[in-house]
Amino acid sequence: MSTSPGVLMAAEIAEQPAVLRGLLGDRATAIRAVSRAVAARKPRFVLLAARGTSDHAALYAKYLLEVRAGLPVGLVSPSTFTVYRARPDLRDVLFVAVSQSGGSPDLIDSVAAARGCGASTLAVTNNPASGLADAAEFTVDVGAGVERAVAATKTYTAELLTLYLVLAGLTGDDVSAATAGLADAAEATLAAHDAVLAAASRYRFASRLVTTARGYCYPTAREAALKLMETCYVSAQAFSAADLLHGPLALLDATVPVIAVTTPGLGAQAMKPVLAGIAERGADLLLVGAPDGLAVQTDGVGEELHPILSILPLQSLALQMAVGRGGDPDAPRGLKKVTETW
Amino acid sequence: MSTSPGVLMAAEIAEQPAVLRGLLGDRATAIRAVSRAVAARKPRFVLLAARGTSDHAALYAKYLLEVRAGLPVGLVSPSTFTVYRARPDLRDVLFVAVSQSGGSPDLIDSVAAARGCGASTLAVTNNPASGLADAAEFTVDVGAGVERAVAATKTYTAELLTLYLVLAGLTGDDVSAATAGLADAAEATLAAHDAVLAAASRYRFASRLVTTARGYCYPTAREAALKLMETCYVSAQAFSAADLLHGPLALLDATVPVIAVTTPGLGAQAMKPVLAGIAERGADLLLVGAPDGLAVQTDGVGEELHPILSILPLQSLALQMAVGRGGDPDAPRGLKKVTETW
Repeated sequence: MSTSPGVLMAAEIAEQPAVLRGLLGDRATAIRAVSRAVAARKPRFVLLAARGTSDHAALYAKYLLEVRAGLPVGLVSPSTFTVYRARPDLRDVLFVAVSQSGGSPDLIDSVAAARGCGASTLAVTNNPASGLADAAEFTVDVGAGVERAVAATKTYTAELLTLYLVLAGLTGDDVSAATAGLADAAEATLAAHDAVLAAASRYRFASRLVTTARGYCYPTAREAALKLMETCYVSAQAFSAADLLHGPLALLDATVPVIAVTTPGLGAQAMKPVLAGIAERGADLLLVGAPDGLAVQTDGVGEELHPILSILPLQSLALQMAVGRGGDPDAPRGLKKVTETW
Repeated sequence: MSTSPGVLMAAEIAEQPAVLRGLLGDRATAIRAVSRAVAARKPRFVLLAARGTSDHAALYAKYLLEVRAGLPVGLVSPSTFTVYRARPDLRDVLFVAVSQSGGSPDLIDSVAAARGCGASTLAVTNNPASGLADAAEFTVDVGAGVERAVAATKTYTAELLTLYLVLAGLTGDDVSAATAGLADAAEATLAAHDAVLAAASRYRFASRLVTTARGYCYPTAREAALKLMETCYVSAQAFSAADLLHGPLALLDATVPVIAVTTPGLGAQAMKPVLAGIAERGADLLLVGAPDGLAVQTDGVGEELHPILSILPLQSLALQMAVGRGGDPDAPRGLKKVTETW
């Protein structure tokens, strides 16, 4: 337990611009070398395996790989390998495991099984000395430095940017111009703190909450919901904007606030029918990426990189809500930093 | 609006054993013929596309295909095709779209795009005269008859069994013995109604709820949560048992009831650490598939077919809870029967 509630999480949130700069600077060459080696395998299908926060980074990679690399992608249920002992034919498959700790047995076993089934295997982890890195043929270090808060923040955005850079290496794209303003935009986004405090105060007594987004920023909705669950204990549910219309819309009313991620881009444009539906249900709506909501600095940063920015005010929101409710987000009830599942 | 609340949903829940018998009887030959034609394409990867309830049937198919057919599988985000206009290389890919109505534009467009990208395409739908069936090269009719209640029930279990039969056709397995007792087991499970009424009464004032399962029955947890959201407006959250440990466990306390699906099998065995974690958090726990919980008749029915049975008491629970709260599950607020998304 830290002496001051949330001090670790606050420090790690604040470190993110520096972590991003590190990935775009010194670490970029190593990542590019690994992704070139992976590209030489000419994968035709990608499987991604992860849990918790890292699963949202994997979901981001899924959109990127499908849209930018033209590769069909699946998110793995590790139980297929570990519980049911499936041994599928994985020739021509790239199997990517994403994990902060690299320590969860089900992921390690899945990578080992996938490798045995003919897949090329890549570990994306904050611990290159982990069991996961040992099990995989290739490893990329996300380089976020030791993360001490139970609620992952800097390792999440580091995983996102690392996966973006791995993909750029696969496709051979030069992304130096696209990423030039990213770390500064992260810094500017984190500096806009007043709206976060106001939202935290407004949600002080909320026990249920819905987050939504579409496309590249859908992982932001998922990760924000997880942060709110694990630090504030609210029933926070994330829906892709389209899925929200297929049923869950009914649960919305004036007592269930909605947080919608609408940083400018095709994903936000596709959300218009959903925002109308949310308004019809009389729900309270907070827009992430709008000047009168939680502002996100995205000038000069392409939509593909927005998820690295749009999560930032929502990490701060979870922290402020948790502390405001008397909790300590550095030590959520019932959780440890490294979760081991089988 | 029906005259008596939930009368349509109740009737369609009760029809399920007959629908299952129809699929195992007259319809089985047609399904087998289609799946043989699909098998001749020798797919190496499978992509599944669906929304809402049908997405849970697709998730079931994912487990089946990975474990039984040894094929890597991905669940498609339709926005990849429709919003971001991705055109991935889908040679050797089988693209399966699952939809009750076959009418949602994003699914139809995704199938058309996938076909243009070289995939073999299969529509699994309750409407073989739909736009989805037109767009796909192959179509299987799930044969549930017209579904009038907004909350899908009989089309869900019909989709599950149809997908099971399609897979059996792909692998060439004779499943007549495995499926022999299924419809009777469904009938017996639906007859055990007292425990459902007791649970509905117990949850009368719950506004938050968690469902969990692992492996083949994880789709049951997902579908139960959706039914509870759309008919009872509760914040019902489904987690795979392993994912629950990676963060969301913190939100559990004595005020958040947990429904865990534990019909006997490898999936339920793998849930033991999670059930211990739930107990530690002091949460109220209802077991689906246990004699003192919501009983499910699974004698002689293999684990792969359990999802067709384990959802049944949970459909009834959603119906009874909705009616008990003064709602009409045949006409949930804010929803229409066919949801169109882009």
